[in-house]
Parts: sequence; structure tokens; C-alpha cells
Amino acid sequence: MTTGIPFRKGHGTGNDFIVIDDHYDQVDLTPRLVAALCHRRMGIGADGVLRVVRDGASWFMDYRNSDGTVAEMCGNGARLFARHLVDGGLVDTPDFTIRTRGGLRTVRIEAGGDVTIGMGAVTRAGADDVTVHWGGGDRTAAAIGALIPNPHAVAVVETLAEVGDITGATAAPAEVFPDGANVEFVQIKAPDRVAMRVWERGSGETLSCGTGACAVGWVHHRHHGGAAQVTVEVPGGEVVVTVGDEITLTGPAVFVADGHIDAGWWQEHR
Amino acid sequence: MTTGIPFRKGHGTGNDFIVIDDHYDQVDLTPRLVAALCHRRMGIGADGVLRVVRDGASWFMDYRNSDGTVAEMCGNGARLFARHLVDGGLVDTPDFTIRTRGGLRTVRIEAGGDVTIGMGAVTRAGADDVTVHWGGGDRTAAAIGALIPNPHAVAVVETLAEVGDITGATAAPAEVFPDGANVEFVQIKAPDRVAMRVWERGSGETLSCGTGACAVGWVHHRHHGGAAQVTVEVPGGEVVVTVGDEITLTGPAVFVADGHIDAGWWQEHR
Repeated sequence: MTTGIPFRKGHGTGNDFIVIDDHYDQVDLTPRLVAALCHRRMGIGADGVLRVVRDGASWFMDYRNSDGTVAEMCGNGARLFARHLVDGGLVDTPDFTIRTRGGLRTVRIEAGGDVTIGMGAVTRAGADDVTVHWGGGDRTAAAIGALIPNPHAVAVVETLAEVGDITGATAAPAEVFPDGANVEFVQIKAPDRVAMRVWERGSGETLSCGTGACAVGWVHHRHHGGAAQVTVEVPGGEVVVTVGDEITLTGPAVFVADGHIDAGWWQEHR
Repeated sequence: MTTGIPFRKGHGTGNDFIVIDDHYDQVDLTPRLVAALCHRRMGIGADGVLRVVRDGASWFMDYRNSDGTVAEMCGNGARLFARHLVDGGLVDTPDFTIRTRGGLRTVRIEAGGDVTIGMGAVTRAGADDVTVHWGGGDRTAAAIGALIPNPHAVAVVETLAEVGDITGATAAPAEVFPDGANVEFVQIKAPDRVAMRVWERGSGETLSCGTGACAVGWVHHRHHGGAAQVTVEVPGGEVVVTVGDEITLTGPAVFVADGHIDAGWWQEHR
């Protein structure tokens, strides 16, 4: 009924995105427009926008946060981006590479439809002095810091239930995390299975955090003797993290709907 | 790219809906499916679904809340529903009637594109004993109760800013509001202009509440000597309430996007 700009909406373990094809880099996606599109009630609603731009023989993932700012990389978004390339016939092999602001990333489409993304290497942040704090500052736990390359602090707890409200969780010491950190709480269920909750700087508690799951998998394997391949239960589903030369993140990418953004609405919100 | 069930998404002053055409009443819209569609991250995301069903020479608005339950009526939703009928050529006059679970409602499409909905009559609930409570029970204000027919308690305050956090606001006495009430805080700006914030039972603080705006307009005119036609500023925009034989609510209806819900996703979430 409406004519306008084509889009798709979908999610990776509850981290949701609006995908816009712009193969020849002609769409002027202003920060104001991204924020309007991502507005949960006045727009379509999403955690971010993924613009699909041709990059030579491959594709560039132009990822924007819901506030309109640009971001380097998003693991859950990259799965949806890759699935979109496959669905649209824009790639013709199950193994390929995409470009992000964080560099080139390897992609593999698994037999069952899940998508694996190469997430790069993890480096440790700080040492045994890392702690996390929550519950209005009343609660503290020892943690391990990790950069992938955004900062994380991973704390193992007995059960996720006893963690309670994680609003505003922070990591210390400040010298190790000058820009703050995402804080992950992890319950170990088996050598190859953990469950996590995450407080993301700037986003709050989310259903899933791709780099957070990778940090958790890395800490589990390298510091707690867990398997090199671990299933990580997040509130929005399950992902698999494999720790090798680089970390890989495997998980679902689900498209819910596609359509057109109203052309008049688009003009008004530029 | 995807084939599936056609939908549109839009909002009335920040109250957002998924509209699904089902003229011959063939779509089995289960509560589970409605909740999945309205999920803000795993679905499309909305405050509710409006199913468009033929009703003789007119149309039935099958309104569902985001949790999948049915509801009688929704003023902001009715504007979007009416605008959809006009956009699709499903009505051919600017004045018509729609059927809701709350009864027949008159509709008028205004010259500028706004939509006016007949919201029925307002009756007073309780008397001078009505009060509202918020701020963890620490704050109290005198209020006037109104049924339209859902229950409201309207409290006039000096400024909306000084009201602060309205989380969990309630109305008393319990005999007057056995099922609770939506609580509106109103700042009077002129005889024909007020601003409001609302705490909705079950939904929390929202960007707009159609019946709440009507309750506020009615209280303003009948109990505070305000004009019979008053502009009500809500966080999501502006509406106009006119108090006459019945209350009418006039406001914008904005469509953002249209498209198709993925057929496979739909089957999986039934």
C-alpha cells in the first residue's frame, strides 16, 4: 500500500535490527533518521540499523546504534546481516568475509541455518584485582577482565537467580576500565554449558550481547578449565562460543518481517 | 523478499499498533501470536494489534493488547484503524461508524488528516473523597474520578515536573476503584490547554492514553471551569478533547511502515 524504502526486521537472540539495502551507498542515513526508525513507539523499533553497502566483491556492514551513533561491530547484528546476504542471493558460498568498522570478519553459514562470525582475539584486562559491583554498590564479586576489543568484566556466581537486580552494575578498578565495562554474570552448568546475564554500558540489561558471550566463553575456557566450545545461554536464546586462534560466535538469525518505510515519514524524519 | 501476512505499523501520539487486514475473518490470531508480534525485540513490537474485519457495510476493530488479551476499545488505536480504512479505500466518506467490543463509534476524518473518534459519555466515579497516591505512597493529591467506562483518577498539579516519578501511582478509595484506575496528573496551561502524564494500570507510564485524555478534558471542563474544547499535551504529542453530548477525541494517526510478516515465523509462533 505504502511506497518507500525497503527494510527487513529481525533479531539475533533478542538483539533486534532494521536491515536496509543500500548497495550503491546512496541512502543518506542521518543520525536523526536512525533514532526515529529505532524509536520503539514512534518508529519501527530496534536496537540498531544495519545498512548493506557493496564493498568491491563483498559487503560493508554499516552498523548504527539506536541513538544514531556509529559502532564498530555487533556480533548478533553480524549474524542477521550475513543471513540477509544469503537470503537475497548477494553471496553464493557458505564461507565469506564482510567488512565492518572493526575490520574484516569471517562468516560461515552452518548446515542448520545458524551463522558463525569470527570475532577476533580476546586479551585480558587487568589482573586479579578486577571486581564487579551491583545492587546499589552493596554487592561485590571477583571478576576477570577481557577486551574483545570492547571492555568486559566476567563474574562467576553460584546461580543467576541469586544475583537479583543488576541495574547499573560496574567494573573496577577504574585504571583498567577507564570507559567503564559491560558486566557479565555467569552460572556454570557443565564444562560445555554456562548461562549468563549482562549489563551493557549505555544499553542496560539486554537479552543478549555477542561480545559479552565471547568474553564469557573465553574466561570459561582459559580461566575456569571449561571446554573450548561452550554453549552460552542468554536471556534471548543460546549461542555457541568457540575459543581457538580467534573466538567464533555461532547463533541463530531470525527475520520476522519485511516491507517498506513510508516515503513521507522518511522525508519528515531526515 | 519474504512472503507472508500483510501488516502496517503506525502510532497515534506514541501509542503504537500493528494493523492486520482480515476482511473475511479468516486469520486465527491466537493470543500467543499477538504476544509474539508485539514483543519489542523478538517480534515487530507494538502496544497492540488491530485486526480489520468486515462488519456488513462497515468494519469491526478487533483490538488486542500486547499480552494477547482482548480489549473493548482504544482511542489512539481507533484513529489509526480509521486512517487505515481511508488509506485503503475501504470507506468512501469522511464520516462513518466502526464497531468495537465497546460498541459502535463515530469517526470523522478532519480536513488536515487528523481523526476524531466519538468516545461515549463520561460518568463521575466517587465524590470529593477521591485521592491519588504515588512516590512509594509518600505523595498524595486530591483527584476527581471518571469512568469512560474504564476508571480514571485525575489530579491537578502545579507543574508536571514537580510530580517526579509516578511509577505505581494508585487511586483511592478502593470502593470507588475496585479494579484500580489509570492515574492522570494535569498541569493547566490555559483555559483551553493542559498537559498531562499518565500511569496506566498494567501498562505503566505511557506516551499517550486516549481515554485518559478524555477523562482529563472532561474534568477540566466540568470541574475546573475550562473550555469545552481543550488541547491536551501528552508525552507523545497533542490531542484535542471536546466535551459535549459525548466526548470526542481528535488527534493524529501516523503510519510508519507496511510489509509482510514472514510466513514461516508466523507458523512457528501460532
